Amino acid sequence: MTETTPGRRGGRQLPTAEELRIWRDFIETTQALGARLESRLQGDSALSTGDYAVLLALSEAQDKAMRSSELASRIGWERSRLSHHLGRMERRGLVRRQECATVPRGSEVLLTPAGAEAFGGATFPHLRAIREFFVDALSPEQVLAAGEIAAALRAHLDVLRKE
Amino acid sequence: MTETTPGRRGGRQLPTAEELRIWRDFIETTQALGARLESRLQGDSALSTGDYAVLLALSEAQDKAMRSSELASRIGWERSRLSHHLGRMERRGLVRRQECATVPRGSEVLLTPAGAEAFGGATFPHLRAIREFFVDALSPEQVLAAGEIAAALRAHLDVLRKE
Repeated sequence: MTETTPGRRGGRQLPTAEELRIWRDFIETTQALGARLESRLQGDSALSTGDYAVLLALSEAQDKAMRSSELASRIGWERSRLSHHLGRMERRGLVRRQECATVPRGSEVLLTPAGAEAFGGATFPHLRAIREFFVDALSPEQVLAAGEIAAALRAHLDVLRKE
Repeated sequence: MTETTPGRRGGRQLPTAEELRIWRDFIETTQALGARLESRLQGDSALSTGDYAVLLALSEAQDKAMRSSELASRIGWERSRLSHHLGRMERRGLVRRQECATVPRGSEVLLTPAGAEAFGGATFPHLRAIREFFVDALSPEQVLAAGEIAAALRAHLDVLRKE
């Protein structure tokens, strides 16, 4: 033996060809999957997945209302992206914004009756599509593995963000 | 026993709460991961991941050129999206388009020297970021499982597309 095999984190900076192939398959496939779900949701209910995420968060919130900062962090968006998006949803009557009674210059986002109705109508077909495109594609073990992979990737991203 | 447990594909139309939680973690995390890679690539080399995908495909092509229809299918984009994107890349001098000599009304996309240089400069930091954000987050078994999950999701999407 003239060479030693370096450990996985032992100084090697680049992915192997196999790791790179897996990465490309993984990111391209998840993006294609997201696009298929988006297109199905639009076709079924004229909502984008962004609209759906906002309506879902508000539906689950106490009093069907959230501070916009809290909503941004709940759905993982930048404040400015959320603000533009909420403007468009407000013009369609799906949400309403008002100044927050308790926090100076804080704004609160409320689910309107029209938003609740749109969410209610979209939910069944959207959940069915998640089952059809994601759950049905995988074995039960693969579904669990997908959850573990997502958790590991998320934890690692959080660590890198703090460094 | 008054109830039978239905099989996984046995008529139940909706995901379980656990499957839904895993789906949301999975899609949100992969989107966050894609966004982090995109932002790193932009910061390191002023290329988007779309630019990078086009430059990569052309770099690997014979004579550094491809028919635009072939390029669209290689990177998984709609023709119209690719055409708009190539227009922007052409204005930045990264690619050049010309009429295809052998196919009437076919157009061919060529990698320019500036495009090859941009790709060359971007590749090392981009691969390092893939290792840092993806490979280092997972155990070797999880990397393999991610590849198997991607393959299963892709195969299922292809079957659904043909139905």
